[in-house]
Amino acid sequence: MFVETIAWKQGKVKIVDQNALPGRLVFLAMRNTKDLCGAIRTMKIRGAPALGAAAAFAAYLGIKNSKAKDYKELEKELKRLIKLVGSSRPTARNLFWGLEKIEAALQRNRDCSVPGIKQALLKEALSLLEQDKFVSRKIGSFGQALINNGDRVLTVCNAGGLATIDYGTALGVMYAAKEKGKKIKVFVCETRPMLQGARLTTWELKRHGIDVTLICDNMAATLMRQGKIDKVVVGADRIAANGDTANKIGTYSVAVLSKYHKVPFYVAAPSSTFDLRISSGKEIPIEERPKEEVVSLFFEKPIAPEGIRVFNPAFDVTPQKLITAIITEKGILKPPFSKNIAKRIKD
Amino acid sequence: MFVETIAWKQGKVKIVDQNALPGRLVFLAMRNTKDLCGAIRTMKIRGAPALGAAAAFAAYLGIKNSKAKDYKELEKELKRLIKLVGSSRPTARNLFWGLEKIEAALQRNRDCSVPGIKQALLKEALSLLEQDKFVSRKIGSFGQALINNGDRVLTVCNAGGLATIDYGTALGVMYAAKEKGKKIKVFVCETRPMLQGARLTTWELKRHGIDVTLICDNMAATLMRQGKIDKVVVGADRIAANGDTANKIGTYSVAVLSKYHKVPFYVAAPSSTFDLRISSGKEIPIEERPKEEVVSLFFEKPIAPEGIRVFNPAFDVTPQKLITAIITEKGILKPPFSKNIAKRIKD
Repeated sequence: MFVETIAWKQGKVKIVDQNALPGRLVFLAMRNTKDLCGAIRTMKIRGAPALGAAAAFAAYLGIKNSKAKDYKELEKELKRLIKLVGSSRPTARNLFWGLEKIEAALQRNRDCSVPGIKQALLKEALSLLEQDKFVSRKIGSFGQALINNGDRVLTVCNAGGLATIDYGTALGVMYAAKEKGKKIKVFVCETRPMLQGARLTTWELKRHGIDVTLICDNMAATLMRQGKIDKVVVGADRIAANGDTANKIGTYSVAVLSKYHKVPFYVAAPSSTFDLRISSGKEIPIEERPKEEVVSLFFEKPIAPEGIRVFNPAFDVTPQKLITAIITEKGILKPPFSKNIAKRIKD
Repeated sequence: MFVETIAWKQGKVKIVDQNALPGRLVFLAMRNTKDLCGAIRTMKIRGAPALGAAAAFAAYLGIKNSKAKDYKELEKELKRLIKLVGSSRPTARNLFWGLEKIEAALQRNRDCSVPGIKQALLKEALSLLEQDKFVSRKIGSFGQALINNGDRVLTVCNAGGLATIDYGTALGVMYAAKEKGKKIKVFVCETRPMLQGARLTTWELKRHGIDVTLICDNMAATLMRQGKIDKVVVGADRIAANGDTANKIGTYSVAVLSKYHKVPFYVAAPSSTFDLRISSGKEIPIEERPKEEVVSLFFEKPIAPEGIRVFNPAFDVTPQKLITAIITEKGILKPPFSKNIAKRIKD
C-alpha cells in the first residue's frame, strides 16, 4: 500500500520521481553520486528524512566501484564525496546526519579490507532505510494520541511517505490515527512555489482513503477564523537545541496564525532532524532557490513580467514559543523544549 | 503613462483584458451587457472600483438600443438588467454602488423622453469614470503622507490602475509617494489562485519605475520576521460600518501577521466601497469560485490529483481591530472606526 520512496535494487538506488507526481508514478534508477545529487537538487527526491538515506546512498555509490587500495585512499575519496553531497541542499539536518552515519561506519571499519569497508557502508545505508520505516511508525504511534476522532487537521508541504521512506512524519500521525479508527479531515496548503501540498500530499492522502481538501496557502487563516481547524501538524527540516524549527516556507506563517487563533501547532520529526550543535533557529542556514520556481516552472505562459525580481527562500524558521509539542520516535516533547530536548534527544 | 482600464469609445466599452497580462496588453470591445458580465465573471475586468464603473456601463449597454416607448417600459428593462449585472460577482460593494448610481439617474430623469433618459444614464456612467480618476488621486495624496522615504511596503493582490480606472488605491498611495520624491521598495504577494499580484501588480509597478520584488503568499511572514516590511497597504472590496474589510483572499492572513510583527496595516479604498447598511464583516457575502482556478487554470500539467476537493473563497474579511487606518478620498480614517466612518462616509 505504501510506496517506497527510496529502495536499493540490483546495485542501483531506485527512487520515486516526485516531480512527475501527481500525474504519473515514475521510478528512476540512480547509478552514481552525480545522478543522486542531481535528483536531490532538482527535488525529484525531497523531504528531510528521505534526504538522510538519499545522501548516505549518494556517498556510497561514489565509492562502490572505487579502485582505492587501502583505507587511507578510500577515506580520502569518501570525504570528498561527503563534501560534494553535503553541498546539494543546505537546510535539512537529516542530509548531514546521513553523511555522518556513513562517515562513522567508515571509521568503525577502518581495520577491514577495502571490499569489507564497502560492504559495511552499504549495510549502513540500508540500515538507514529500515530505521526510517521504524521511526516513522513510532512517530505515528505517539502522534495519533494527540488526534481526536473528527478532528480537522491542517498541514503544510509534504511530510508523508514521499518525504520519508514509506510512511511519513506529519502524515504518519494521520495514517496512525486512521489505523486507530479515528475519522479525520485534512486540509492541505498547496505550498508554493513547488506545490508539494497540492501535488504530493493530496495524492498520498487520497490514496490512503483520508478525507482531503486542497487550499491555497493564503486560505489557511480563513479556515482558522471560521473555527474549521482543530490542529496543525507539520514536518521539520532542522530543529535547534531550543526547539526552533526550520520547515518548508509557509510553516512559520501558519504557526503565527495558529497562535492567534489558539489552534495547537505540532511538529513531527525523527531525532535525526535535531541539530543539538546549534542553540537556536538563528543558526539554521536557509536555502534560497531559483526564481524560475516561482515564475515559470509549472506555468503554461508567463505569470510575471520578464526580469522581475523574486525572493524565494525554501524554508522558514518557527520559533519554539509557537510550537505546542514536537512528536518524535522517542515520545512527545513539550515545553520547556531546551530541557526536554536535551533529556530525550542525543546526537 | 497610465493605462485606462475602462473607457467609452464609439458606442462600446473598451477594457484591458487582465487575463492576458503580463504577457500582452490587449484591449477588448464590449458591445453589450452579456459581453461585459462575462468579462466581470471571468475576471478580465476586476478590482472593486473598476467593477463600479463596469457595472454601470453593463446596465447602460443593455438599454442603449432599447425599443421602450416610455419611462415605465425602460425602468422595467433597466431593473431586470441591474439584477442580472448584480449577480455577476457578489462581494465587491462598488459593483452594487455603480448600479445604484445608474438607478438613481433613471429616477432623477423620469420626466425626460426615452432618448433623454438614455443620454442621462450614459452621462452618469461616464461621470463614474471621471470620479474614479479623481478619487484615486485623492486617496494617493492622503495616503502618501503615511509613507516615509525608504519604506518597504507589502501589498496583496492588485489595487492599482488595473483595479480602478487608471491610478489605483493601494498602489495609488505608492505612486503618489513616488511623485513626492520618496524612494520605496514594494514586496508583492503573488496572490493565489488568480495571481493578480504576480501578473498585474508587478507589471504596473515595474512600468512606473517602482522597485518591486515578487514573493509567494507564504513568504510574507518571513519578510516581516526579518524586519523587512515597514508597512502594509491593501485595497478593499467592501467595508462594513464598523470598519471590517473584505478584500482578496490572503489579506486577513497578512493582517494577522502584521499585528503579530507590529507592522502598520493600511486599507486604501474610495467611499463607494463602504457598505453602511451592514454593521460588521459577518454580513459580507464571500464568493466561492471554481476549483479550476486552483488546480488547472495557469498550469501546464495537472498539479493535483484528479477529482480532488478544493476550498476556493475569493475574499476574506479582516476585522477592524487589525486595521491601523483606512485611507479614503475624504481623508484618513483612524479608530474608533464606527464613529469615524459614520462621521465621514455617507452612502
